[in-house]
Amino acid sequence: MPNIYDYAYELEKAIRNSDEYKSLREAFERVMNDAGSKKMFEDFRQLQLEIQLKQMQGEQPSEEQLENAKKRFEVIQQHPAISKLLQLEERMNVVMADVSQIVSKPLDEVYRELEKEGE
Amino acid sequence: MPNIYDYAYELEKAIRNSDEYKSLREAFERVMNDAGSKKMFEDFRQLQLEIQLKQMQGEQPSEEQLENAKKRFEVIQQHPAISKLLQLEERMNVVMADVSQIVSKPLDEVYRELEKEGE
Repeated sequence: MPNIYDYAYELEKAIRNSDEYKSLREAFERVMNDAGSKKMFEDFRQLQLEIQLKQMQGEQPSEEQLENAKKRFEVIQQHPAISKLLQLEERMNVVMADVSQIVSKPLDEVYRELEKEGE
Repeated sequence: MPNIYDYAYELEKAIRNSDEYKSLREAFERVMNDAGSKKMFEDFRQLQLEIQLKQMQGEQPSEEQLENAKKRFEVIQQHPAISKLLQLEERMNVVMADVSQIVSKPLDEVYRELEKEGE
């Protein structure tokens, strides 16, 4: 009987062979192979990370940071290769979040029973 | 061609049918079906969560909390059904962490390239 790891590797392969993944990878390489787009994308990603980090630490990002991020996002939206990459990232993130939810369901069920009984 | 979701559901089924999961579920039910063990386990879990939450917020748990957790852990270790459950939880957590790492590998590779090129 195949075990959990066999199925996990099958899933990994399926992700690797999926259109979602292949097109994300292509879009990513397209952006990375152009110094200008690369810098624009990396700066934007850096700013996103800083804001996320603040929020994770329970701090509010500053007005200036948010305004800055919004402006840069508008500029980036006009850049075909980068906006394509952001779209494909979003699509892939949805798929990966679904996968994670599906795979966590068996354990969630066990612990949800605990909560229910605790009510 | 089957898609990512089909493979994710196969993996979910494999987890559900695994010995690791079945024995965890049984051990969990055994603890939950006894009011005394249930309370002991839930109190311990609650304390663990409080400590984890503090750590996630970058705070140090108090000496008292750590001492309390340590004492309760020692008591719980002596309780056969609960210590079995904790062991099985740990085993399952290792498997789930491995699964998550395997499944994240394709995307990690894409973004690791970004870091490498950025060096």
